[in-house]
Amino acid sequence: MSASLQTPATTVRRLPQRASYDAETIHRILDEALICHAGFVLHDRPVVIPTIHWRDGDRLYFHGSPASGLLRNLRNGVQTCVTVTLLDGLVMARSAFHHSMNYRSAVVFGTAAEVSDREEKLRALDALVEHVCRGRSKDVRPPNEVELRQTLVLSLPITEASAKIRTGGPVDDEEDYALPIWAGVIPLNLTPAEPVTDARCSMEVPEYAARYGR
Amino acid sequence: MSASLQTPATTVRRLPQRASYDAETIHRILDEALICHAGFVLHDRPVVIPTIHWRDGDRLYFHGSPASGLLRNLRNGVQTCVTVTLLDGLVMARSAFHHSMNYRSAVVFGTAAEVSDREEKLRALDALVEHVCRGRSKDVRPPNEVELRQTLVLSLPITEASAKIRTGGPVDDEEDYALPIWAGVIPLNLTPAEPVTDARCSMEVPEYAARYGR
Repeated sequence: MSASLQTPATTVRRLPQRASYDAETIHRILDEALICHAGFVLHDRPVVIPTIHWRDGDRLYFHGSPASGLLRNLRNGVQTCVTVTLLDGLVMARSAFHHSMNYRSAVVFGTAAEVSDREEKLRALDALVEHVCRGRSKDVRPPNEVELRQTLVLSLPITEASAKIRTGGPVDDEEDYALPIWAGVIPLNLTPAEPVTDARCSMEVPEYAARYGR
Repeated sequence: MSASLQTPATTVRRLPQRASYDAETIHRILDEALICHAGFVLHDRPVVIPTIHWRDGDRLYFHGSPASGLLRNLRNGVQTCVTVTLLDGLVMARSAFHHSMNYRSAVVFGTAAEVSDREEKLRALDALVEHVCRGRSKDVRPPNEVELRQTLVLSLPITEASAKIRTGGPVDDEEDYALPIWAGVIPLNLTPAEPVTDARCSMEVPEYAARYGR
């Protein structure tokens, strides 16, 4: 068991048996997910924006143009809630009521800060490329000074977080098991298809793209 | 071109060439997605929760236990922002800076209301089963009176919304095209695997599960 990230804000009240506050469990979900949904409050209204996140140790990173609404707001130190969800399957019960989904989700609360140190910023942007596609960072042209200035990197400590996980088959009311209704799980996976090489590129598809996986 | 759902709140300011306010475009994204991320403000802090949504006409529906934190808050008429994102591919450019993702996202702002009319509620719950798996609703045991009472259904008008879409290959700086770096797209799809029949079920896998698709 790694560190617990349970706080009053992260305590799961509904179906608490599905909850986990274990840092390693939460990190694994964050690492597998390619996108997150980040929420912030703007003029008293909630705003939820999809973006790429990545993790390094116990920090979650985000990046984008300094003109991005999400980045501009988070940079100003407003509270955020970052949620990622991995959908693993459709759970088909005999009753409509007991239909469900298998999923792994993680919620992180906190306040992001700008990464202004040049070395940390370069390291973070390298880790981003590796997060999206392991093996890719050694091949790409790294950011130049203009691009570095055009990229805002924010980091958020992963100290207040929770995971919620459902696995397994349908759970029906006892009397419904006798009904002649198919029940089971349709597993779902985010699957890569064959890479499509850019029309202006004559290089062979590298192994990390041809055999892409998470 | 169907109705425009553009309002000041939904106007996309960053990369506006990727934005759409066309109701049909937004509906298609909402219909394909199996989950959304709903945001609301609780004690001045943003909260983002994954949940199932479904659409009927120009209304978006949600459901859950009356004990659910998300449902309890939305039922009270607080503002919400509901965002869905479909990830279509990883865009690998020659430079780290121009790496991107292909995606289709939709953002809906508004205030939800409880569906208390019994007929509308039953119709909505039927539409939910069909949203998740077309053809399934005719097979399942429908909700009984106790289950109906235990299920809160909320509806949100889809009147203030936007979509954002990126498609296509990498766009590199002109001088980078000469670099010996592979560039292209790794397409991603949410793919169903073979259904796993429940241990206590002896029925054959129905066509809609065996050939599940969206």
